[in-house]
Amino acid sequence: MKSDRPIGIFDSGLGGLTVVKEIIKTLPDESIIYFGDTARVPYGTKSKKTIEKFSLQNTRFLTKFKVKLIVVACNTSSSLALNLLKRTFKIPITGVIEPGVKQALLKTKNERVGVIGTRATISSGVYQKALTSCKSKVKVFAISCPLFVPLVEEGLLNKKITKAIVYDYLEPLVKKKIDTLILACTHYPLIKSVIAGIMGPGVQLIDSAGAVAGKVRCMLDEKGLRAEGRNRPRYQFFVSDEPRIFSKEGSKFLGRKIINIKRVNNV
Amino acid sequence: MKSDRPIGIFDSGLGGLTVVKEIIKTLPDESIIYFGDTARVPYGTKSKKTIEKFSLQNTRFLTKFKVKLIVVACNTSSSLALNLLKRTFKIPITGVIEPGVKQALLKTKNERVGVIGTRATISSGVYQKALTSCKSKVKVFAISCPLFVPLVEEGLLNKKITKAIVYDYLEPLVKKKIDTLILACTHYPLIKSVIAGIMGPGVQLIDSAGAVAGKVRCMLDEKGLRAEGRNRPRYQFFVSDEPRIFSKEGSKFLGRKIINIKRVNNV
Repeated sequence: MKSDRPIGIFDSGLGGLTVVKEIIKTLPDESIIYFGDTARVPYGTKSKKTIEKFSLQNTRFLTKFKVKLIVVACNTSSSLALNLLKRTFKIPITGVIEPGVKQALLKTKNERVGVIGTRATISSGVYQKALTSCKSKVKVFAISCPLFVPLVEEGLLNKKITKAIVYDYLEPLVKKKIDTLILACTHYPLIKSVIAGIMGPGVQLIDSAGAVAGKVRCMLDEKGLRAEGRNRPRYQFFVSDEPRIFSKEGSKFLGRKIINIKRVNNV
Repeated sequence: MKSDRPIGIFDSGLGGLTVVKEIIKTLPDESIIYFGDTARVPYGTKSKKTIEKFSLQNTRFLTKFKVKLIVVACNTSSSLALNLLKRTFKIPITGVIEPGVKQALLKTKNERVGVIGTRATISSGVYQKALTSCKSKVKVFAISCPLFVPLVEEGLLNKKITKAIVYDYLEPLVKKKIDTLILACTHYPLIKSVIAGIMGPGVQLIDSAGAVAGKVRCMLDEKGLRAEGRNRPRYQFFVSDEPRIFSKEGSKFLGRKIINIKRVNNV
C-alpha cells in the first residue's frame, strides 16, 4: 500500500522551507507540495481566530492535491490551530511542536529549557505545557522575539544590528542557566549562528526541522504510505504573493534554487 | 448640498490612525469610518499586485457605508494602488503622498529632501517622481526602512534598541545634508523623536497627516460636502483581526481611547 501521492506542507511564508529541506534530505523519494501564505505573512503577531481561519484555508488548499499527509511547518499555526485542523480533516497531520519538544527533553541535562518564538506561539503556552507534561520537573523559560521574523524576512542575517537586536531579546535568557534552547519558529535557524554566539557554547540549540522530518518518516512508515521510489519526486511551490520574491529569498532557506512556483489567489 | 455622510479611511493596520487624529482636529464635525486590515498587515513588504487587490477590497468595503470621500491613509497603498482606485470608483479619493510632497517642497531651502518609507513605497519611486516633477531641481534621497513598521507595531517606541535600529537605517542619510525629511509611512510619527534626535535640529520632519487633513477639508469644500454640524460626529472602527489588540495599541496612535470597534470577515 505504498503511495506516490505528495506530502503537503504549509507555512505563513518562507520559514517552512527549512522543514522542506530536512524532509528532502530524510525522504528523498517523496514529492512535496508547499504553500507559503506570503500575502498575509506574518502570522505570529495575529490572533488565534485569524490564525485558525488562515490555517483552515491553507489545509483545504493542500487537500485539493490529494496529499497523503500534511505538515504544519509554521510554529504559530502548530501552536494555535493544530487541534482544530486534526478535528476538521481526516488526513494525517503533524505540527512542528511535539518533535522539537521531544528532542529538547532528550538533550537537556540540567532540565532548564528555553523556548523562543513569535508572540502568538509563546503566549499560547503550548510549548511550556508540552514540555512540562512530558517531564514535570523541567523548568521552562519562554520569551517571544517579535522582531526576529521581520529581521530574517529582510535578509538581515549577520549584520551588526542583527546581533544587537538578538542580544536585546536574549539577554534575560542568558542569566537563566538553561542548557537547551528550542528555536520555536522556522525562521530562526537562519540566525542560528548569531543566537549561538550570544547563548554561548553551553547551550544546545534545537531547530525542530530535523526532528519533524523524522516524525514524518515514522508516520508514513506506520501507515505504509512511503513513496515507491519508482518515479522522480516532484516539488511544487505555491504562494499567495509574488513568486519572484519567494524564489529569491526562499533559496536561502531551502539551500537550493526554487523552480516551479505558482501564485494562487484562492485563499 | 452639505452632507452628513461619513468620511472613509483605510490603512494596512494601525498607522492610519495618525491621519484620523489630524482629521478629527481639522474637521471636528465629520463622521469617520475607519478600516484597518490588521489580519494582513504589513503591506509594505508585499507586491504591487497584492497591494492593489487588498486596496480594492478595502475601498469596496468602505463604499458600503455610503462614505462621501475616501482617504487612503497607507503610504504603500497610496504609492501602488491609488491610480487604480481612482479609475475604479466614482467617489472622491485622496492618498497621502501629494499633501506630504507639497509640504516638503514648501519647507526645503537647500532643495535636498529625504524620504523614508517601506520597501514597497520607496521602490515604487512614486515619492521621488512626485517631488522632482513639482520642482525639477530638487535632489531626493530615498531610503526604505523595513524594520520600522514592526518596531512601532511592537510598541518599541523609545528603547535603546529602537535608537540603534533607527540609527542603522538613517546613518547614510545624515551625510546627505538634507534639510527636510518626509516620513512616508503613517507608522513613523510614533518614533519621530528618535528620528529627530538622529537627524539633528537642522532637518525638518514632514509627517503628512496634518497635510492630508488640510487636503480633505479642501476637497469637501470644493464639492460642498462638509458636514452640517447639527449632529454629533460618529467614529466607527473596523478591523480584520482581533479588535482588542487594535484597541490597546491604536490608542497610542489616535491619542484617545478607541471604542466602537468591530471585526469584519468579508475582506
